[in-house]
Amino acid sequence: MRYLSATLLLLLGATMAPAKLVTEAVTYKHGDVVLEGYLAHDDSFTGKRPGVLVVHEWTGHNPYVRKRAEQLAALGYVAFALDMYGKGVVAKDRDDARAKSDVFKKDRALMRARAAAGLDVLKKQSNVDGKRIAAMGYCFGGTVSLELARGGADLVGVVSFHGDLATPNAGDAKNIKGKVLALHGADDPFVPPAVVTAFEEEMRKAGVDWELVKYGGAVHSFTNPDAGNDNKTGAAYNARADARSWQAMKDFFVEVFAQKK
Amino acid sequence: MRYLSATLLLLLGATMAPAKLVTEAVTYKHGDVVLEGYLAHDDSFTGKRPGVLVVHEWTGHNPYVRKRAEQLAALGYVAFALDMYGKGVVAKDRDDARAKSDVFKKDRALMRARAAAGLDVLKKQSNVDGKRIAAMGYCFGGTVSLELARGGADLVGVVSFHGDLATPNAGDAKNIKGKVLALHGADDPFVPPAVVTAFEEEMRKAGVDWELVKYGGAVHSFTNPDAGNDNKTGAAYNARADARSWQAMKDFFVEVFAQKK
Repeated sequence: MRYLSATLLLLLGATMAPAKLVTEAVTYKHGDVVLEGYLAHDDSFTGKRPGVLVVHEWTGHNPYVRKRAEQLAALGYVAFALDMYGKGVVAKDRDDARAKSDVFKKDRALMRARAAAGLDVLKKQSNVDGKRIAAMGYCFGGTVSLELARGGADLVGVVSFHGDLATPNAGDAKNIKGKVLALHGADDPFVPPAVVTAFEEEMRKAGVDWELVKYGGAVHSFTNPDAGNDNKTGAAYNARADARSWQAMKDFFVEVFAQKK
Repeated sequence: MRYLSATLLLLLGATMAPAKLVTEAVTYKHGDVVLEGYLAHDDSFTGKRPGVLVVHEWTGHNPYVRKRAEQLAALGYVAFALDMYGKGVVAKDRDDARAKSDVFKKDRALMRARAAAGLDVLKKQSNVDGKRIAAMGYCFGGTVSLELARGGADLVGVVSFHGDLATPNAGDAKNIKGKVLALHGADDPFVPPAVVTAFEEEMRKAGVDWELVKYGGAVHSFTNPDAGNDNKTGAAYNARADARSWQAMKDFFVEVFAQKK
């Protein structure tokens, strides 16, 4: 009875203010490099609201990450899917993705600065509450989000989805201002147990408010349907882990943005 | 706007059917041992609903575990806080708690059978959907819940809150029928990393659908306010991890009971 009435009333509520997704490609610069990100919000929510920076996989800014930005908009946030590589630049193949992401993996200062340029775009939006901004990312994007936080960026939260948790700057974890949620495939061969353990130790030593979730049966890229379904390749979609990690992220955002449920 | 309307309508919905907690002490037997558990449901929910078996800490069946049963009832479940030790039997102190729980830790067949007697009480309730029963427990109770599942009990899910994840019967994990969620304090000295790793390997080998969450800064007993707040003792309350683990449990139950949110 209570289930039913709550559901009906929620449906009525949704009907009263239908979702109205608004998206925009945003061209911006980091130094001389021209970048193009993707901004999304839902006009059926009003007033200033939390902002979420979304960082793409090593393949570059693509439809997958834009879809995630739209899903975040539907939750009531302003989402900005930044661009690390350059306007229209996406990796041609796996080797190219490795080469493009390695530029940043080997130069963490550049990684932080390039991501910060994207964060600035989000901060400038008039409908964003600058005190409630989080960063999240997938694979390479998880690494970037964490590195941005290690650089001391004003983030209330960071979420890594199957990100590489390793860093050459473990001592910088003391600069992390927000909470950290790492969502990890328990069978991910690209982020092996030793890396996870080192990450936990890094967070522990720095006194960060952290949480790590391991999804049994999940490997790398578990949130991305484009990764296929063969765990043996080390990267595969896992619908169960995808749904659970998205829910974990939603719960985390409710907490870090201090919203009422 | 959408936030507001949904919130208001939910409030209206709650007003229409106020919570009506119904509890009952239930005396039952396992062999010749007389036990007394605590049954709770909320009469504002109607019809058959999922059942949740709740297993107490090593201190025995006490007000803490009855409170948890009431909280589960408020979520719309029928909760039964079983009794492992005997009617009115609670540990006098830490040594007594260790002695009482060790009886079961050293006799896993007895542990499973005693817990199964509690499960039978829950199954027999006319308002319980026998196909949707989960078990959960705290510390020793987490161990018991997992062991019950390893024995092949008909459970769609098991949740361990800071439970000892070790078992002498790792091979029995193949009998686990439901999903498993282990909620763990990352600094728990009583359930050290080697035990956690062995548990992960056990679940992996058996092909269980499992998930493990590590809460940074949390030690043993993180859900129980009675544990005090001194992490140095190895057991302490952690409000943050308490709230997060309860939310993780709620999400998990929604999934395993296949309810619509």
